[in-house]
Amino acid sequence: MALHLLTPPLPSSAPSSLPRRRSSPSASASLAHPLHLHSRLRLTTAISRPAPGTRRAMSAIRSSLIEPDGGALVDLVAAPDLSAALRAEAEALPRVRLAAVDVEWAHVLAEGWASPLRGFMREHEYLQCIHFNSLRLPDGGGIVNMSLPIVLAIGDADKDRIGAAPDVALAGPDGDLLAILRSVEIYPHNKEERIARTWGTTAPGLPYVDEAITPAGNWLIGGDLEVLQPIKYNDGLDHYRLSPQQLRDEFDKRGADAVFAFQLRNPVHNGHALLMNDTRRRLLEMGFKNPILLLHPLGGFTKADDVPLPVRMEQHSKVLEDGVLDPETTIVSIFPSPMHYAGPTEVQWHAKARINAGANFYIVGRDPAGMGHPTEKRDLYNADHGKKVLSMAPGLEKLNILPFKVAAYDMVAKKMAFFEPSRSKDFLFISGTKMRTFAKTGENPPDGFMCPGGWKVLVDYYNSLQTEGAPAAAPPATV
Amino acid sequence: MALHLLTPPLPSSAPSSLPRRRSSPSASASLAHPLHLHSRLRLTTAISRPAPGTRRAMSAIRSSLIEPDGGALVDLVAAPDLSAALRAEAEALPRVRLAAVDVEWAHVLAEGWASPLRGFMREHEYLQCIHFNSLRLPDGGGIVNMSLPIVLAIGDADKDRIGAAPDVALAGPDGDLLAILRSVEIYPHNKEERIARTWGTTAPGLPYVDEAITPAGNWLIGGDLEVLQPIKYNDGLDHYRLSPQQLRDEFDKRGADAVFAFQLRNPVHNGHALLMNDTRRRLLEMGFKNPILLLHPLGGFTKADDVPLPVRMEQHSKVLEDGVLDPETTIVSIFPSPMHYAGPTEVQWHAKARINAGANFYIVGRDPAGMGHPTEKRDLYNADHGKKVLSMAPGLEKLNILPFKVAAYDMVAKKMAFFEPSRSKDFLFISGTKMRTFAKTGENPPDGFMCPGGWKVLVDYYNSLQTEGAPAAAPPATV
Repeated sequence: MALHLLTPPLPSSAPSSLPRRRSSPSASASLAHPLHLHSRLRLTTAISRPAPGTRRAMSAIRSSLIEPDGGALVDLVAAPDLSAALRAEAEALPRVRLAAVDVEWAHVLAEGWASPLRGFMREHEYLQCIHFNSLRLPDGGGIVNMSLPIVLAIGDADKDRIGAAPDVALAGPDGDLLAILRSVEIYPHNKEERIARTWGTTAPGLPYVDEAITPAGNWLIGGDLEVLQPIKYNDGLDHYRLSPQQLRDEFDKRGADAVFAFQLRNPVHNGHALLMNDTRRRLLEMGFKNPILLLHPLGGFTKADDVPLPVRMEQHSKVLEDGVLDPETTIVSIFPSPMHYAGPTEVQWHAKARINAGANFYIVGRDPAGMGHPTEKRDLYNADHGKKVLSMAPGLEKLNILPFKVAAYDMVAKKMAFFEPSRSKDFLFISGTKMRTFAKTGENPPDGFMCPGGWKVLVDYYNSLQTEGAPAAAPPATV
Repeated sequence: MALHLLTPPLPSSAPSSLPRRRSSPSASASLAHPLHLHSRLRLTTAISRPAPGTRRAMSAIRSSLIEPDGGALVDLVAAPDLSAALRAEAEALPRVRLAAVDVEWAHVLAEGWASPLRGFMREHEYLQCIHFNSLRLPDGGGIVNMSLPIVLAIGDADKDRIGAAPDVALAGPDGDLLAILRSVEIYPHNKEERIARTWGTTAPGLPYVDEAITPAGNWLIGGDLEVLQPIKYNDGLDHYRLSPQQLRDEFDKRGADAVFAFQLRNPVHNGHALLMNDTRRRLLEMGFKNPILLLHPLGGFTKADDVPLPVRMEQHSKVLEDGVLDPETTIVSIFPSPMHYAGPTEVQWHAKARINAGANFYIVGRDPAGMGHPTEKRDLYNADHGKKVLSMAPGLEKLNILPFKVAAYDMVAKKMAFFEPSRSKDFLFISGTKMRTFAKTGENPPDGFMCPGGWKVLVDYYNSLQTEGAPAAAPPATV
């Protein structure tokens, strides 16, 4: 995915009285471009501004800027006083050993990022996910978005050992007990169908498939998850891993009246910063008094040539230290999910999880969660499909989607700027691959591409690779 | 797909006062088997019985047993007095030549089987279809089911010829003008993604892919369809091709208070008949006075080794002549759609189209629209997924789904009967392949498998193949 940026077409007018539920594309010719319609409508139908004098009243309900999916945030971590009894119970249960990526998903589930999901998917949830990208709530309560299967695969030996046992214990990669999965349901893991419906291709070489699906077992086990204690990684970054509830509390504490989330898995350059700062400016113009940016790097599995999490976190720190982003109005936190690189399907998950974390605005750019096709010389996804699919996705109606225009390096102004087609020859597009090549070869990118402190972090990282001969891997999760 | 049958677990009680909207699966352990729940709930929440004395009042709204998707049945056939002017207009437009299967889809669209769709899909409809199996209605009007892409592919030369023209003319395979497509939108045809998301595999050898996708162009053209005149095939079967409106009128004429649809693309054997008759009996027990069966064979593209439509229609006639099904309470009509063999994805289309035709009960069996995996020795789909997916599909909430149990040949009773696991050795399963092998080799199936008149049609057909050396193809559509 190239690091092109898009600027949101935010109107400068205040919120209008249009109905809050977004309009939908119709079959008529006049609605042939639903995205333009959506983005305009959604932005003019943002949540109401607090009226003068209502600030205290708003504070009391601040964490309800946006409701978690299903109405209540799921929390599957056992209360501390129950942990010992649960551990004793788990000791006696059939045991399943998790891979590192499974632990990341258990973490995601435990903290409610996937609310209202209460554990690894049973078959009826899995089928709704892969066919409809959504889940029905009980008792006609509507639907919530759920586009990526959050499933746990086991092999024949595990299945035989579990037999008819209703509950199983889950252990981490090192064998330590992690959780109990209750009222389990075991069903076939049709890998080909799962891959085809999630990625829209079955070409070999998809990073998540190679990491977590091909080597996994031929059965899936769903059930209700109870985690014995909070999942920690002891990598020096756990203080960045705020749960959805902790984020909501932090937004309350800061008195946020709008929260806009920025998902990323790459270093922050000045084009990203331009976009985030421009979004804040426009939200202020719309009448919000205290929009807070959730800078939310993904912390789970990423492909081998992505910049590792510890390096990215150091780079993000420098960006705030250097004043490119304002620490007063920015929260940097780690999103614990693994990365699928599944484009339009995955961007829905990225947005849905941020609803649960309390963000009511979500920034989406060119080709979100995209990458090159693993076997053909083209991008895997049409660069526009991510934001189009996101704008129409079931269960995301309450989230304000902020699509944005391409930004690039303006060689005249010597800074990152929103692309102007009328003088296209003045702009330089610097892809992620190009950026990494600069850092690897020690060549400096153009002035103004990234703050010097942040750039140095990348150069040092690539230097260390050449010295050590292998990428620094993040330490595995511990429990 | 084996010709196993399932009997609906219909309760013998009258409709209860449960809410009409079906309950939905929750994440709790007790709802781990949503299908059982659904089928029971849906059947006990069927539409209200007419109370004594209300028959005349019911008659007036009979065609509203179930509303068409979007509220009004789409009709895209030009009024006769406008046909000549439209034809003159079409003569002057850039022209696209359709394949036979495209004409079948134009037919499907023109008569409103895909209501509220008003033409070949534009990109926003296509994306919702492949990602969500549903379409949003305008102005917050909810969603309708739409699981198969109804799209028209064109090549580079077509695209260049069309240029920026807003409207194009569509011609049949023989070059005759068929329709105008208005306010067109041209977008990329990513065949790999379409195939993966529709079939859950990209393995070579999928019949519809080989027929209609691989040879098709790399662009899709969407727009609003206007058909110059009703599409006819002049194959002696056009009188069987009732439109959704004609079917609704016929149900009204017969005073139906329930309509149950049976989709098939195979000859009717006594197992099918057992199921249909049993469904009728149970609907009567539930309090309906006049349930009508819509025996609705698929009439569009089928794979080469399926029994051709003219033979199937003759066979169906014999089944009614022989009294296996009651002509008084059965309507035999052709469903003009092509067949995708896309299992759980396609069965939704089969059900949704029958809503538009006025059916409020839909029978679903084992592995609907399934077939063998094209390159592996297994069925392409889990045999239970079709009815599970159908029971949870967005936009089908108003349709009563009737899943049914396996039936097979009972060697003791010498007839087709619902399978009893307690005496499984008495039952013989006769797959479609086995049935065709019997007919080809002149071997008789067990007594009671199929009525003699129907069986003779099949034997004669396979004899004619051996004589002629090639299957009899249905004549192409004419306009």
